[in-house]
Amino acid sequence: METVPARRGRAVRLMAGQAIRIVNTHGTQVVDTWAFNAADPGEFLSMPHLHAALGSVFPARGDALVTNRRRPILMLEEDTSPGRHDTVIAACDVHRYQSLGCAGYHDNCTDNLQAALAMIGFPATLCPPPLNLWMNIPIAADGRITWGEPLSRPGDHVVLRAVMDCVVAMSACPQDMIPINGRDCTPVEVQYEVIA
Amino acid sequence: METVPARRGRAVRLMAGQAIRIVNTHGTQVVDTWAFNAADPGEFLSMPHLHAALGSVFPARGDALVTNRRRPILMLEEDTSPGRHDTVIAACDVHRYQSLGCAGYHDNCTDNLQAALAMIGFPATLCPPPLNLWMNIPIAADGRITWGEPLSRPGDHVVLRAVMDCVVAMSACPQDMIPINGRDCTPVEVQYEVIA
Repeated sequence: METVPARRGRAVRLMAGQAIRIVNTHGTQVVDTWAFNAADPGEFLSMPHLHAALGSVFPARGDALVTNRRRPILMLEEDTSPGRHDTVIAACDVHRYQSLGCAGYHDNCTDNLQAALAMIGFPATLCPPPLNLWMNIPIAADGRITWGEPLSRPGDHVVLRAVMDCVVAMSACPQDMIPINGRDCTPVEVQYEVIA
Repeated sequence: METVPARRGRAVRLMAGQAIRIVNTHGTQVVDTWAFNAADPGEFLSMPHLHAALGSVFPARGDALVTNRRRPILMLEEDTSPGRHDTVIAACDVHRYQSLGCAGYHDNCTDNLQAALAMIGFPATLCPPPLNLWMNIPIAADGRITWGEPLSRPGDHVVLRAVMDCVVAMSACPQDMIPINGRDCTPVEVQYEVIA
């Protein structure tokens, strides 16, 4: 098993047919997740397109996750958690933490994506809207959202199987100013492995 | 008043302080709407960032609409409609109509954006997730979405005031295969004017 350190990002290349298992080691950690066509960083997993494809803002086990060209890039093959993952909130960034009152630099998922892609030599890109694994954002009928704590438990995992050759990037979200990573606001590491 | 013809797109430049009034002439027409920083097409109105800023998926009169750098680019200054506008669904594209069963080319909002920007000489860009004016997409507590008909009435309008120099692009959505543009599935024109 490999580790995504607390507050950091990692990326891996998957061949079509390979899969990645991402484990919420402590149960409380949100993992912002992206996927890019290995042959073209302009094609990527896209939440607004996913909403139309699924007829839902909450993907579930067995769902095909589609790109901005509406092609499946990953299958959500397994999910041992209660299945609450966010698809409507942008990755955090320096501006987000400034608006919450942070004066200096704050680790953030947007910069973690760029660093993770650079580590494997994949071209930098705009930060697409992420699949926020285990981020619990209920949406009320009037549209209001709630910044909830994860419903997942230690060891819960998802398996994402590549439908095309792709790059999967993950960021162990460094949010420690609101309790989306659990009520003690302490970002922690998660683990992952590439499987056949 | 200028016209966005049925199934087509238009774009206009606004100086900070100017505004655009967009009129749902027949009351049934969805208008996919985008905004870009006039000085940098890499900064644009962004729905996933807007959700975090507003704490809601439904913007309302008086709200600041923010970019992917979390800066206000437009104010939703007036809205005479019931205020139901979609922020979670991607712009339609050729792939969307293919998946609905259309064999040949179908007009679509993604291509309309590119054409509208080209008409005013603004650099082409990826298609950001749009603000879908008058598109009625209820979201249930379990995440399921419904493709509703607009709740707006003939002549309903919004006023979007520019907070920075920007380009606003609109597409009169050509969707005629599901009833998001009214139950008769007939896309029609809308009107707009730039105001002081």
